[in-house]
Amino acid sequence: MPKYIPRRADYRHFTTVPTRWADQDALRHVNNAVYYMYFDTAVAGFLHGTGILDGHHSEVTAVVVETLCRHHAPAFFPDVLAVGLRVASIGTSSIRYEIGIFREGEDTACAEGHFIHVHVDRREMSRTRPVPDALRAALVPLMVQPAPG
Amino acid sequence: MPKYIPRRADYRHFTTVPTRWADQDALRHVNNAVYYMYFDTAVAGFLHGTGILDGHHSEVTAVVVETLCRHHAPAFFPDVLAVGLRVASIGTSSIRYEIGIFREGEDTACAEGHFIHVHVDRREMSRTRPVPDALRAALVPLMVQPAPG
Amino acid sequence: MPKYIPRRADYRHFTTVPTRWADQDALRHVNNAVYYMYFDTAVAGFLHGTGILDGHHSEVTAVVVETLCRHHAPAFFPDVLAVGLRVASIGTSSIRYEIGIFREGEDTACAEGHFIHVHVDRREMSRTRPVPDALRAALVPLMVQPAPG
Amino acid sequence: MPKYIPRRADYRHFTTVPTRWADQDALRHVNNAVYYMYFDTAVAGFLHGTGILDGHHSEVTAVVVETLCRHHAPAFFPDVLAVGLRVASIGTSSIRYEIGIFREGEDTACAEGHFIHVHVDRREMSRTRPVPDALRAALVPLMVQPAPG
Repeated sequence: MPKYIPRRADYRHFTTVPTRWADQDALRHVNNAVYYMYFDTAVAGFLHGTGILDGHHSEVTAVVVETLCRHHAPAFFPDVLAVGLRVASIGTSSIRYEIGIFREGEDTACAEGHFIHVHVDRREMSRTRPVPDALRAALVPLMVQPAPG
Repeated sequence: MPKYIPRRADYRHFTTVPTRWADQDALRHVNNAVYYMYFDTAVAGFLHGTGILDGHHSEVTAVVVETLCRHHAPAFFPDVLAVGLRVASIGTSSIRYEIGIFREGEDTACAEGHFIHVHVDRREMSRTRPVPDALRAALVPLMVQPAPG
Repeated sequence: MPKYIPRRADYRHFTTVPTRWADQDALRHVNNAVYYMYFDTAVAGFLHGTGILDGHHSEVTAVVVETLCRHHAPAFFPDVLAVGLRVASIGTSSIRYEIGIFREGEDTACAEGHFIHVHVDRREMSRTRPVPDALRAALVPLMVQPAPG
Repeated sequence: MPKYIPRRADYRHFTTVPTRWADQDALRHVNNAVYYMYFDTAVAGFLHGTGILDGHHSEVTAVVVETLCRHHAPAFFPDVLAVGLRVASIGTSSIRYEIGIFREGEDTACAEGHFIHVHVDRREMSRTRPVPDALRAALVPLMVQPAPG
């Protein structure tokens, strides 16, 4: 049975990320590592918008502990991508973001994956800290039921 | 006498380039090398828009022979930058593009520089070729008098 | 029970990858996306060394269909990293590479993950092709039993 | 008269920088912006080695105010580049580094340029500070007469 490929309706928040010429590698498509820059731009942009956790001044910051990306189709310069974001689960100190990347005019993701943050003390960077309550509240509109399987 | 810093009106074509989280380095501002990715995205995007020289299929392509960037002020994530483009001169096979980068709400460039293309045979990549006539025509709206000094 | 963190002995081939200043982001450690550039440099370098599949001239090339990275500890500039490579499984057209990244003087991975290639016709980039026999042979020294769990 | 292209003997300190697969763009050579990552890795690595100015803890840090790169020939993955460094001039608060990039087995630079640092207070990042005396001393072995023209 073919694997389900996420659609735009599966995500709750979208960030527009234009590709850059240098995103493409010698295979003339966007390099696999660059998708993770789209991922963390979407997450960091959402977090910055909340004003709660900005990576510069806040007491708590978040570090990435695991990411995954599945590629269904290539993207190219000058694609203007829509990076969809949702939150699948929030633990004591971690948040699992899920991301889908869409080319213009397409409803199935060209790439999708997850991005797991653990919250830590911003100065020590290693002591785990609870997800701030204000952040939990800000993430409510992004929450979905976890994808089956 | 303070050096002249370019303004938006000094450029003829603008490309919107949102910064990415990973554009920032450990000094917490956009890394100097990343500005050149903004430069070549602006030039490549303009060229792609003309349909004349796209780097994938056209007979002639362009390679960078010299770039320069002067930094007047830092940029940060999540700045959405306006990358201004103008053409200062067109030689037999070369084009000198000039670029100014502007943060939102600012009229003086945070960074500015130039980007010189030489046109070459796309397959051999080393044999110089004249700037295609169609490209010369497409660049007329971007032409300015060369900056003094 | 604490999760097993891979050690150097778990990998079969090592590539030295010095970090770069710009690899670090505003959290002053290597950005999560950059680890995937270490991953694909290790895989592409191994493949280039075989002379079988170089991404420029060979009939078959490989595209990335899935990657994952788990982060156990940060890396910093100017770390000189050892990128360990092994092959966990080879299917009809796909290869699952597994990667562990080690800082100097450390025997447990600061990051680890996988990188799955599917082989395709280099011109069409979408038609799946079998893993070339010469490549299967070249990968024998990298084969390991798949990690339990 | 053909322009002089720098040779290895024109530089005083060398850093080995292996190219990465993703350094190449869709023209299948190292992207122009990436050379500046080689530049700032060479400068930051030298500075880190002195222990004087490391960008993390020192009172004074350095920000880039101007860079230039001229390209004489392409570089490719998996080239292992030698990045040559010299200091052409030291002002009250600024240092002009000059860089030449060499492919293995080649004595003329495939790319060369300059990289100008201004020293600033690390916390405020905008107040100019004198080049520290210890740094002036550490740079003596890198000093050359400025290139003519």
